[in-house]
Amino acid sequence: MDVIAELSGLIGADAVLTSPSDLDAVTEDWRGRYRGPALCLARPATAEQVSAIVRCCARHGVPVLPQGGNTSLCGGAVPSEAGPAPVILSLARMRAVRAIDPVNSTMEVEAGCVLATVQEAAAAAGRLYPVSLGAEGSCQIGGTIATNAGGTSVLRYGNTRDNVLGLEVVLADGTIWSGLYGLRKNNTGYDLKHLFIGSEGTLGIITAATLKLHPLPTRHAVAWVGMASPADALTLLTRVQQRCGARLSAFEMINRLQLDLVMENVPGRRSPIETPADWHVLIELSDNSDGDALDAELQAILEDAFGDGLLTDAALAASDAQRHAMWEVRHSVSEANKKAGVGLTTDCAVPLSAVPAFIDAATAAVRALVPGLPAIVVAHLGDGNVHFIPFFSFKDWQAVADRDGLAVAIRHAVNDEAARLNGTFSAEHGVGRVQLAEMARYKPVAELALMRAVKQALDPQNLFNPGRLLPPG
Amino acid sequence: MDVIAELSGLIGADAVLTSPSDLDAVTEDWRGRYRGPALCLARPATAEQVSAIVRCCARHGVPVLPQGGNTSLCGGAVPSEAGPAPVILSLARMRAVRAIDPVNSTMEVEAGCVLATVQEAAAAAGRLYPVSLGAEGSCQIGGTIATNAGGTSVLRYGNTRDNVLGLEVVLADGTIWSGLYGLRKNNTGYDLKHLFIGSEGTLGIITAATLKLHPLPTRHAVAWVGMASPADALTLLTRVQQRCGARLSAFEMINRLQLDLVMENVPGRRSPIETPADWHVLIELSDNSDGDALDAELQAILEDAFGDGLLTDAALAASDAQRHAMWEVRHSVSEANKKAGVGLTTDCAVPLSAVPAFIDAATAAVRALVPGLPAIVVAHLGDGNVHFIPFFSFKDWQAVADRDGLAVAIRHAVNDEAARLNGTFSAEHGVGRVQLAEMARYKPVAELALMRAVKQALDPQNLFNPGRLLPPG
Repeated sequence: MDVIAELSGLIGADAVLTSPSDLDAVTEDWRGRYRGPALCLARPATAEQVSAIVRCCARHGVPVLPQGGNTSLCGGAVPSEAGPAPVILSLARMRAVRAIDPVNSTMEVEAGCVLATVQEAAAAAGRLYPVSLGAEGSCQIGGTIATNAGGTSVLRYGNTRDNVLGLEVVLADGTIWSGLYGLRKNNTGYDLKHLFIGSEGTLGIITAATLKLHPLPTRHAVAWVGMASPADALTLLTRVQQRCGARLSAFEMINRLQLDLVMENVPGRRSPIETPADWHVLIELSDNSDGDALDAELQAILEDAFGDGLLTDAALAASDAQRHAMWEVRHSVSEANKKAGVGLTTDCAVPLSAVPAFIDAATAAVRALVPGLPAIVVAHLGDGNVHFIPFFSFKDWQAVADRDGLAVAIRHAVNDEAARLNGTFSAEHGVGRVQLAEMARYKPVAELALMRAVKQALDPQNLFNPGRLLPPG
Repeated sequence: MDVIAELSGLIGADAVLTSPSDLDAVTEDWRGRYRGPALCLARPATAEQVSAIVRCCARHGVPVLPQGGNTSLCGGAVPSEAGPAPVILSLARMRAVRAIDPVNSTMEVEAGCVLATVQEAAAAAGRLYPVSLGAEGSCQIGGTIATNAGGTSVLRYGNTRDNVLGLEVVLADGTIWSGLYGLRKNNTGYDLKHLFIGSEGTLGIITAATLKLHPLPTRHAVAWVGMASPADALTLLTRVQQRCGARLSAFEMINRLQLDLVMENVPGRRSPIETPADWHVLIELSDNSDGDALDAELQAILEDAFGDGLLTDAALAASDAQRHAMWEVRHSVSEANKKAGVGLTTDCAVPLSAVPAFIDAATAAVRALVPGLPAIVVAHLGDGNVHFIPFFSFKDWQAVADRDGLAVAIRHAVNDEAARLNGTFSAEHGVGRVQLAEMARYKPVAELALMRAVKQALDPQNLFNPGRLLPPG
């Protein structure tokens, strides 16, 4: 019996799709950059069905490619052009919120649950699931776990990894590992969940998770600050951290070019401050206390900083509408940059103390390749995560002879500077297929060997998402 | 050449100790319960020397037992009576604080650095290393990482795991993996550090670490509260979390018996409140703000709770001296219990919502074995971690015919109730050798199989700390 027929027998013919119209949406990434053929799309409804699919594929030697919301920025969720066509295993039908325990501050969800749905279910129970990112309306919780998604609240709440207490995973031999612990402390052997978190579907298929929730903040204070340099921004960050501790929930930085592009390309966006500045910082404090203490606290910090010459202008949001308007400027960067031209996105993180040196060095390195080339900077400064984005107008980019070659050279130039400063080439986007060459270029040999040993131990047949994450040995 | 001579040639004869007087302190655990023979004590000064020792032992098939401060409660750091005598590898000479970066809020330390020294070095730089526990004056940072130590600040800052950003590890083939990243975000493949954290020396030897630091709190508010039940304590905890968010830094609970034992056995300790109560809670808020806001906040919460009948009495520390006195009562429990009788310590965690049911069920289960037996309860309630300690007077314990058998039966009775409530038998103490039978009893087969696959992949020769953590297959 062939694989498709066998799968249809296992999970029902209506859950195994093969028509081009069904496969189109799952075989191409959302930016239309990567696509490859698939044997079929399997849509299981339970972990047991996932297990049956995996066993069947293992018998036939057919790769299994788990897919969540297909929002990867690294081509991690769609098939390769070459190699055997995989079964794409969609978790979309497994989308139940199984339980919420407000006293334990946990919730158990199935992998296909959309991130925004998780956030809403937590909020309805008076709790916060803090992971928040651009794709939250369509990405699935399983995908965010498999890729250890970051976002804008890492500074306060950590990465996805830090908000997962337990997992249910289907292993390469079809075993279902039920590790849905909801415990804050559990010192009973290797913490296996951390192997699967961030493994990009290469070690097992996450079918459910127990998430850690937090008290729902009731107050927010937000300010927009103009500054002369990243070094000044870093000084201000250290001050806010020292004075506000965990109340600091965001410290985002963009440069003047980024703000200009947003204002030029997204209707209704304008600068929250009047004085032009080379660098802009959005600060958010969050807390559960009553009253206006947060606004007063942020205002006092900003007044001190202004007195010390650290900032050139600042605006404190005086209403929810102003607060949202400030965040909308920040959230409009992707839309603006897409309209404005061609940005070669990078995703470096360096130690916070090295951020100013990194921005200077990356600028110089890129301009050594393309004299005078401007760069957009969008940084989760509180995490040391800098998206340094060398930027071309559409016209200039079209005039480049070897565009692929130049893009690679520019990304290497930026990533080399991050590596020199003990940083990373992928802070939050992951590896997928796009960054395989970077894995080979920057990862220590011993670390790659360890990863390969783990992959071999857990997936000796190389069944799960082959050709992703780990460069050829 | 024999192993001892070869090791002496590799790291110097004065760093390889074999005399009984040198071995006594490292072959017996600090409570004098477990001991076993060692081939020698090797005291390397660098990761390269650790690597040389490991290669030598691998060639000769001699086990390597890494040892930190030898403060394990589970017999994890001393040799077994049976089996080949290992080389005990002490990290004590590798104790440098290599670097502190206050802007990045990180420090790089060698594994042999004593935890209290790490805390002090961080504080001197205006930062907090939050992990705090009874043995902090002698346990080493490497040991706390290898065992993922818990303690009294997990509620606010997480376990040791959550405060480690990078590791340097010597692997079973002698390779030195340099993973001393100081990054908040790094999504470049499997997060290998989490494999070694909590692995109790069975996968590699941690030689250095990059730790995550936090702003140093400048204000504390502490209260002692008398309550009628664990359920009331849980209600109060939920309220404090919702109103104070991350300012809540400790929520510890003990029962009346524990408080009585402290007052009877430790000179100078007295109850912080006058009204007798069955249950006592210590609450600490910490923050970086100025002024008396914290005290006022805690007082308001307690007044509301008193109005609602949640608590029977409360005392807010009015001075640093009163604050320390309250903490001293909490910190005196081990000393008091050791003097007072024989406590059969357990280390369960359950979902917070299940704590009251767990205490009731454990009490009933133990009394089914020994009618009327009292139990001490010491709980890190904010983490769901309950040390439920069935307690005998010295005289009663001596009168027990089969003490070992009864101890096992009682611990199983308690741990069974935790397991039934989706909890764990080891929240913070680890497995070592003491809990091997519990690993076999409670861990799902699929989870043990995964752990064994990882062990086999990283240490195929079973060189590191054999007979620990993983029960025989």
